[in-house]
Amino acid sequence: MSFLQIPKDSHFPLQNLPYGVFSIGKEAPQIGVAIGDQILALKEVSNLFCGPILSKERDVFNQPTLNKFMQLGHEAWKEARATLQSVLSAENPALRDNADLQKRALVKQCDATMHLPVTIGDYTDFYSSIHHATNVGTMFRGKENALMPNWKHIPVGYHGRASSVIVSGTPVRRPCGQTRPADDQPPTFNPCRLLDFELEMGFFVGVGNELGSSIPVSKAQEHIFGMVLVNDWSARDIQKWEYVPLGPFLGKNFGTSISPWIVTMEALAPFAIANMEHDVPVLPYLQHDDKYSFDIKLSVAIQGEDMQEPSAITNSNFKYMYWTMKQQLAQHTVNGCNSQTGDLYASGTISGEEPSSFGSMLELCWKGTKTIDLGGSHTRKFLKDGDNVILSGYCQGDGYRVGFGTCEGKVLPAKNPFS
Amino acid sequence: MSFLQIPKDSHFPLQNLPYGVFSIGKEAPQIGVAIGDQILALKEVSNLFCGPILSKERDVFNQPTLNKFMQLGHEAWKEARATLQSVLSAENPALRDNADLQKRALVKQCDATMHLPVTIGDYTDFYSSIHHATNVGTMFRGKENALMPNWKHIPVGYHGRASSVIVSGTPVRRPCGQTRPADDQPPTFNPCRLLDFELEMGFFVGVGNELGSSIPVSKAQEHIFGMVLVNDWSARDIQKWEYVPLGPFLGKNFGTSISPWIVTMEALAPFAIANMEHDVPVLPYLQHDDKYSFDIKLSVAIQGEDMQEPSAITNSNFKYMYWTMKQQLAQHTVNGCNSQTGDLYASGTISGEEPSSFGSMLELCWKGTKTIDLGGSHTRKFLKDGDNVILSGYCQGDGYRVGFGTCEGKVLPAKNPFS
Ligand SMILES: [Ca+2]
Ligand SMILES: [Ca+2]
Ligand SMILES: [Mg+2]
Ligand SMILES: [Mg+2]
Ligand code: NI
Repeated sequence: MSFLQIPKDSHFPLQNLPYGVFSIGKEAPQIGVAIGDQILALKEVSNLFCGPILSKERDVFNQPTLNKFMQLGHEAWKEARATLQSVLSAENPALRDNADLQKRALVKQCDATMHLPVTIGDYTDFYSSIHHATNVGTMFRGKENALMPNWKHIPVGYHGRASSVIVSGTPVRRPCGQTRPADDQPPTFNPCRLLDFELEMGFFVGVGNELGSSIPVSKAQEHIFGMVLVNDWSARDIQKWEYVPLGPFLGKNFGTSISPWIVTMEALAPFAIANMEHDVPVLPYLQHDDKYSFDIKLSVAIQGEDMQEPSAITNSNFKYMYWTMKQQLAQHTVNGCNSQTGDLYASGTISGEEPSSFGSMLELCWKGTKTIDLGGSHTRKFLKDGDNVILSGYCQGDGYRVGFGTCEGKVLPAKNPFS
Repeated sequence: MSFLQIPKDSHFPLQNLPYGVFSIGKEAPQIGVAIGDQILALKEVSNLFCGPILSKERDVFNQPTLNKFMQLGHEAWKEARATLQSVLSAENPALRDNADLQKRALVKQCDATMHLPVTIGDYTDFYSSIHHATNVGTMFRGKENALMPNWKHIPVGYHGRASSVIVSGTPVRRPCGQTRPADDQPPTFNPCRLLDFELEMGFFVGVGNELGSSIPVSKAQEHIFGMVLVNDWSARDIQKWEYVPLGPFLGKNFGTSISPWIVTMEALAPFAIANMEHDVPVLPYLQHDDKYSFDIKLSVAIQGEDMQEPSAITNSNFKYMYWTMKQQLAQHTVNGCNSQTGDLYASGTISGEEPSSFGSMLELCWKGTKTIDLGGSHTRKFLKDGDNVILSGYCQGDGYRVGFGTCEGKVLPAKNPFS
């Protein structure tokens, strides 16, 4: 128990302690940990980190990003968690009984501006949800050829754009681009007509690997720092015209939103469940038996400009992943590709089997053939200008939650880039 | 003329003055300019930059990378070039007559270690050579469908891996990975059997654009700092099995080599020639009439471990590009994607029409159906362990050359990642 009062449905109890970067007013960004509806400013309590590793590395809490802390490795992450759980507990007087320190170190979340928690080197997007890949394949190639021959053998992925990863709350402008509305007509330049979200999660690499070396699946968990919600905004019409043969590009790289708090793998450990069964055997370098799937309840809500409140349009779960994050990281590095502290690896759209759990509007409206009901006579197929898209996710414990908060972004109308 | 003696076939006369980052022994990396077979250390002469912009920004020459200098913009780049041409000229006594300063500021290239010249944020690889795209399309889809319907409408590209961009001279380990040698058999894990180079060039973004804004084709040249040679090492068998539908990934991201010296667009300006004619009209946002194609003679040589000297296997030219760098940058940002100082945008493999000008072994051996003759009974289809691959490029002026030096990399044998 914390000495702070934390409601049962808070995403940020003592069991969570996710890391983020925040600022107050015009002050410089700093590192914090979410606790209830507050933030513990780590630079104010850095002298309380007295463990064997962190007592010599307190400077990592006095940085504008988490990279230096993450780079210290998983033993340091464990030590930090133990210290934070103690500092915030009802038993420890250090912060509990020091009103001055509390005043300096505790900040209300509603008074803070959140920033990207890390400097992201490279961003990769996987495609690891079997229901999503099957849905998309069925729509575009038919049921018989829904999954490509490689799909059950390798966690398929592609490089995304690191520069346009943005933190929750940053609005996203509807992109303009080239599309070909009719196959027998030349392409046109116009604002995207089929703007979509993709419900994803992503993990941050804490400790990387040298170029030419690999991270074996059995060691991958030591390299994975924690997770965030990811909205991989997608312009379906731009994507369709551009993506053969080299993959998604301008249809994706105009923005990718992440939730501000990185929930650590230690906090998620109690929610590990059996991995999804594979009906096709995988090569040894991708095999692992330990549970590394997670029961994380995910939902997406949309609030249009003329709507009083957000309307939930899907409920999915991270457990629907076919490939685990360990397998993704092992695959990504098996050829010697180097990972670096702060790399972001996203899951791909996470869809369940039922239509009510599909992770994109493309699937929910089944390529435009169905209407998505938002209640109160509001409907959608794809996103409208002014829509706020709200991803949310949490693990349900016994009387507490370990949550991610939300990952939000509002659609701004397109702007002619040349006017 | 410089006060230094520079042979006619040097790549680095007074007309060139490319920027790089070098170190001597165990000293920290610093910024230099190549002149003949020497390097001018800019931190030693920073007080000679007396122009209106750089006299206030001399700190940019005291950095471990070029990013801060590049960020100053194209007026600063021009001013720096004028100062350097003066400082190194036969007329200016400041360096010419100061033996002490020469001793501090001039370093032999053979005594220096070169480093990556910039911190690279994002790396994109285009696919803009029509002969290359036609060759690859013909091999894999037949002559009738060689070019995809989008190819003449958009400069097609994909995101590459920034972390594994390496400087010339860094060896490249043959990657291991999943391949499917026979379509009716399950995939296997093994060292790449079809290792290839790709002869490319790339440009560095000097000044970027904000997320949500675009760089119009008419302004693109103000954002382009300079160019390097690029070898986009490619594992054809890994690539073939993985790349549908999301594009190249592990078949490429184990390493991308660049030449160490960034040749500025000012130095290349005299070698601008008419752009390649388009037989399909492009949308207005991609149209520009001014010459932004460049006559840069490119070649690749291979030296096997048992060969006395490198053997040239192809002679190409940057002028074979169908799309210009202006069009690439306009396309990349037209959807609001932000570029940043230090981003690297590569051309794609540069092939001419004739087989002797093809830019990859895949094309030179035509998918393994032909043998590439290296002379002295040495032959290749794809790369062997120990092969040193040497890209070279220069513009021929009247009595001088503006060159890129070489971009080299030696193939190390595969290493089982799990032993
Ligand atoms: Ca995605
Ligand atoms: Ca390439
Ligand atoms: Mg995205
Ligand atoms: Mg490469
Ligand atoms: Ni990147």
